Amino acid sequence: MPHNPRFALTPGEPAGIGPDLCLLLARQQHRHPLICIASRALMQTRALQLGLAINLIEVGPAAWPQQPAAAGSLYVWDTPLGAPVETGQLNGANAVYVLQTLTRAAQGCLDGHFAGLVTCPVHKGIINEAGIAFSGHTEFLADLTGTPQVVMMLATHGLRVALVTTHLPLKDVAGAITAERLLKVTRILHADLRDKFGIAKPRILVCGLNPHAGEGGHLGREEIEVIEPALQQLREEGMDLIGPLPADTLFTPKHLEHCDAVLAMYHDQGLPVLKYKGFGAAVNVTLGLPIVRTSVDHGTALDLAGTGRIDSGSLQVALETAYQMVRRPVAG
Amino acid sequence: MPHNPRFALTPGEPAGIGPDLCLLLARQQHRHPLICIASRALMQTRALQLGLAINLIEVGPAAWPQQPAAAGSLYVWDTPLGAPVETGQLNGANAVYVLQTLTRAAQGCLDGHFAGLVTCPVHKGIINEAGIAFSGHTEFLADLTGTPQVVMMLATHGLRVALVTTHLPLKDVAGAITAERLLKVTRILHADLRDKFGIAKPRILVCGLNPHAGEGGHLGREEIEVIEPALQQLREEGMDLIGPLPADTLFTPKHLEHCDAVLAMYHDQGLPVLKYKGFGAAVNVTLGLPIVRTSVDHGTALDLAGTGRIDSGSLQVALETAYQMVRRPVAG
Repeated sequence: MPHNPRFALTPGEPAGIGPDLCLLLARQQHRHPLICIASRALMQTRALQLGLAINLIEVGPAAWPQQPAAAGSLYVWDTPLGAPVETGQLNGANAVYVLQTLTRAAQGCLDGHFAGLVTCPVHKGIINEAGIAFSGHTEFLADLTGTPQVVMMLATHGLRVALVTTHLPLKDVAGAITAERLLKVTRILHADLRDKFGIAKPRILVCGLNPHAGEGGHLGREEIEVIEPALQQLREEGMDLIGPLPADTLFTPKHLEHCDAVLAMYHDQGLPVLKYKGFGAAVNVTLGLPIVRTSVDHGTALDLAGTGRIDSGSLQVALETAYQMVRRPVAG
Repeated sequence: MPHNPRFALTPGEPAGIGPDLCLLLARQQHRHPLICIASRALMQTRALQLGLAINLIEVGPAAWPQQPAAAGSLYVWDTPLGAPVETGQLNGANAVYVLQTLTRAAQGCLDGHFAGLVTCPVHKGIINEAGIAFSGHTEFLADLTGTPQVVMMLATHGLRVALVTTHLPLKDVAGAITAERLLKVTRILHADLRDKFGIAKPRILVCGLNPHAGEGGHLGREEIEVIEPALQQLREEGMDLIGPLPADTLFTPKHLEHCDAVLAMYHDQGLPVLKYKGFGAAVNVTLGLPIVRTSVDHGTALDLAGTGRIDSGSLQVALETAYQMVRRPVAG
């Protein structure tokens, strides 16, 4: 890609704060061209509502910009709404629109128009209510790109946490921790830390599944029977893996200062501390995709849309992380 | 208790860092008399090993001190070892000794000799290997005081986290979250925040069990079927309970700044963030006992015993918390 790499930006749910975040971001100059894939009419209306004078510049496959827009301008690939948007009010008539923006963005990445994709939040419930089976950005992008296994990682300054299991009821977690899944997830995490984040020899801290990492089998045997053998196999492939460690003492300076990522076994084992540490500045990264994809770590915040009382910190970090993931292989 | 209240201090495992911590603490003047329940010979030897000149003053039921020891002195209730201690080397011959120190301390609390008990770590494994069924300080003290249900709470500056379940394999957690247990645990937490911590109307944030607190039933139904009805019943008793909330976004300023404690459903949901935030200065408090008991939040650290390279921050916080729990009912 000889030109200044372009990034796709999807505002997601049109009634939520996604459009607001994209407009706030457009006030400043960016290093790369950002292509906001959204309804131009929606962006225009929301800018008026927020009292922001943002110059919306229409772009598309017929004419891609080569340079970043000036501060105060935003490139928009106009994508028609299903129905006019009432700020803060969900409307199933726009479910197809939301998926259309994602499809354009992801397909644009696969086709080489975009170097990466940064997403603002969608609202799963309203898409499902509109009769479309949809379990989230990550699964949608995995399907669209034909990727059998992806890994969810959250990151903030000084800490990355990847998950072996994600949105499962807690009662199903222990059964889902299989050697097969551990091998796949850890290999994806290791490969993407190396290839997308430019870390030559990633060191990964691995949490146990049980409290105190099972305490030698007294508090559960998955560490002994499943996790340790899988880690041993991966170490023999050359990976630098520490663990399984008790999750409650892993997140302390002694362990964290010498590692590149933490692999947690499940959602609420790893994410509370990540979001505590990275409050307002955390990014969600999908590993294992053939494209670069980062996302804000928060929801649609319908009640704050149009108010201007929002913080674009997470979107800023999401953009910077996407830039970093694209630059690394060139530099490294 | 008209005199300056006395506190019992148990160094726990004699080969670990417990004796070292007690000796380090004795360098300073304390507000209350601290009675270290341990072998005088052990404390003498460890002080020599650490190069600390601590004056060990023998005390006991025949003559309790009324005032704190001077800086550089430590009251010791001499309790005979089963075998000489080799620093850093576990020895099952001292298992009975360890339990004897705990029994003296707890019984002394029940008998009114001590206002509270502060414990250093024991080593469960060696006690069990010595043929004594022992699953931890908390369970031992519950048995000794005839308490059917206790609650484990960890605290550090600005955050308290209590647990509905503690040392269970993860696969058994969901099944253990019953209405009966939730009611018992929450009532104990609420009563002790009020009576021992002097908080007139405690506000408690309650985590969901599942990721995103079940997301309306899509990620598990325990919130709907078990947790919400139990919280509703407790609210009707007058408790101020918020939740169930998603654990990954609960530990952020918006929620935490207006609460007195967080109730987590299980060990690794609540403790990683508590220990991350409170690194080196967290305390473990047992709620529901008829006595005041606090503890350090770390283990025996056998490899560091006798080296002096340890931090007594957690023991300091454990002492201060015990003082606070005793003073509150008088003051409030």
